[in-house]
Amino acid sequence: MNEINVPACELSAFCVACFEKLGLSAGDARLTAENLIFANLRGVDSHGVIRLKIYADRLRVGGFKLTGRPQIVCEQDASAVIDGQHGVGQVAATAAMKLAIDKAAKTGAAVVSVRNSNHFGASAFYALQAVERGMIGFAATNAGPTMAPTGGREGRLGNNAFAVAIPTGSSPPLVLDMATGAVAWGKIFVAQQEKRKILTTWALDKNGVPTDDPNAAAHQGLIQPVGGYKGYGLSLLIDILTGVLSGGGFSTHVRTLYQQIDTPSQVAHTCAALRIDAFMPLDEFHQRVDETIGLMRSCPTAPGVERIFVPGEIEHDMEQRRRVDGIPINLALQTELATLAAELGVKASF
Amino acid sequence: MNEINVPACELSAFCVACFEKLGLSAGDARLTAENLIFANLRGVDSHGVIRLKIYADRLRVGGFKLTGRPQIVCEQDASAVIDGQHGVGQVAATAAMKLAIDKAAKTGAAVVSVRNSNHFGASAFYALQAVERGMIGFAATNAGPTMAPTGGREGRLGNNAFAVAIPTGSSPPLVLDMATGAVAWGKIFVAQQEKRKILTTWALDKNGVPTDDPNAAAHQGLIQPVGGYKGYGLSLLIDILTGVLSGGGFSTHVRTLYQQIDTPSQVAHTCAALRIDAFMPLDEFHQRVDETIGLMRSCPTAPGVERIFVPGEIEHDMEQRRRVDGIPINLALQTELATLAAELGVKASF
Repeated sequence: MNEINVPACELSAFCVACFEKLGLSAGDARLTAENLIFANLRGVDSHGVIRLKIYADRLRVGGFKLTGRPQIVCEQDASAVIDGQHGVGQVAATAAMKLAIDKAAKTGAAVVSVRNSNHFGASAFYALQAVERGMIGFAATNAGPTMAPTGGREGRLGNNAFAVAIPTGSSPPLVLDMATGAVAWGKIFVAQQEKRKILTTWALDKNGVPTDDPNAAAHQGLIQPVGGYKGYGLSLLIDILTGVLSGGGFSTHVRTLYQQIDTPSQVAHTCAALRIDAFMPLDEFHQRVDETIGLMRSCPTAPGVERIFVPGEIEHDMEQRRRVDGIPINLALQTELATLAAELGVKASF
Repeated sequence: MNEINVPACELSAFCVACFEKLGLSAGDARLTAENLIFANLRGVDSHGVIRLKIYADRLRVGGFKLTGRPQIVCEQDASAVIDGQHGVGQVAATAAMKLAIDKAAKTGAAVVSVRNSNHFGASAFYALQAVERGMIGFAATNAGPTMAPTGGREGRLGNNAFAVAIPTGSSPPLVLDMATGAVAWGKIFVAQQEKRKILTTWALDKNGVPTDDPNAAAHQGLIQPVGGYKGYGLSLLIDILTGVLSGGGFSTHVRTLYQQIDTPSQVAHTCAALRIDAFMPLDEFHQRVDETIGLMRSCPTAPGVERIFVPGEIEHDMEQRRRVDGIPINLALQTELATLAAELGVKASF
């Protein structure tokens, strides 16, 4: 398959060099690269360096503004609004999470919304920043409209996503990082290749009718919200907590990463932090979460199931492996990165 | 079918009289009755007066403690923990939401967790209390373990639920009120009666294997979490935010409403409020939410779909109808209420 494994540090250095050539500050370049590599390390390759080219394209033509610096628009003791000024989403979201953490350190809990931002990569990256400070972290983002409300047949809501990260005692942090769609497009493409039917809860055909045919889904269809109307509600809720509440883009005002790449995409986020020792001593919380994890893992399993996982565990295990083995880069992505390297005059060591 | 329609005010007065006879204060009796009638009015009959008998039984034998008064255990400017002292869940949760609202009025956002509580009825009841104050409200609860973690075949998590209520301009408040199970048991019982198959994403048989046979589901099976591992993650998250964080019961430590009715059920809740004018003027928010609702409703519909609804709209419409027509009470429930009335020496006007 001509797939190569690249050490995370080399891939990260390459991304940093590209971002710096594109005009980001050293700090912003490092942060944005770190977010992409974080996703690759955890096996979430859809949010990793596969996005480097479109980020570069957007930085070159103004879809991500180099001059955008996160600005606090208004704040209270436990809340704030940040204007991302159409800069890189990772920079704005990190500023928001830092502000939420600093406020929660004083008040116990805080919520910070961000408008005029862009694609921010993997949500778990931000939520985990709170865990390092003994807090529960929450990060949500809206996205360009690719799902319909229940009963509809046109995109009105993004596959909006959120992550929550929870400190633990003896296990890796619990990390629930989920989009509000029933399934990723990747799974539908795999079913297409393998000529298998898909569940009727996964996708709609172009007329808005649930389909078990992956081809009908892929041909102008839409992903269904997870769990039907519940996922629709969750996606709408995230749009309101991010786009509506921040004063930013929502619903059809938001563009996907690949639409109108010379124009800011109007993405909005919301980050929140809960300081655990405002509720109970952190040690006690650790013990209680560990007990909860133990109760999940000790659940008798269904036939053919080897073991029970808790949220974030598979990604954590993957990270341990990929820190040793490197990050797999397939031939198409190698070519894409090599082209970008040549365009920017950056050396790729791999 | 011998179903009668009872005016909401009559049914409410009956519940209040029962609760007072059982020993609740006038205020607590009214609040608890209001919560049950709220659910009936909105068509959520599973959380309405059908619960009156088990509440009465628990009050009589100590599963709900008459002496339980919500006490603040600890607090910060934007957070608190309340001990419900095993009293009625509605009383503890209302105290928590009031405290969250009062704190958010000062700080912009606040989160209050409750331990040692009991079944609190419909979550939307609490979330909507924040809307009256120009805030976004959130209320979540855990419950006795009736779902397995993904891959498991024994109950380790409740069908944990939450509600978020959002102020609007010209529409009823948006209310997302959802449990983390794929489906209510009621739908499986209907499929059983009608000898129809169920979706394989709804339930597990007694061995933990997804089944399309409603009989296999009903015979020692379990409800599946909504959307598979996503619902598992959501349910676990709620358990941690409520039971673990509050110092209360979680996972298998929580009992269902119908288990060991003479013993407190160790249910825990979390309520939160976000003050909208900490983010933007309330009027502007109203306009933006109204536009969002308009974008959902104007989405072209799939074949056979008459119109698009937004979360809480169907329940609101039902409430308008039932305020006029009364609340339908079937024969079995009439008998149950009549027996209770006789036992307590309360007069039922219906």
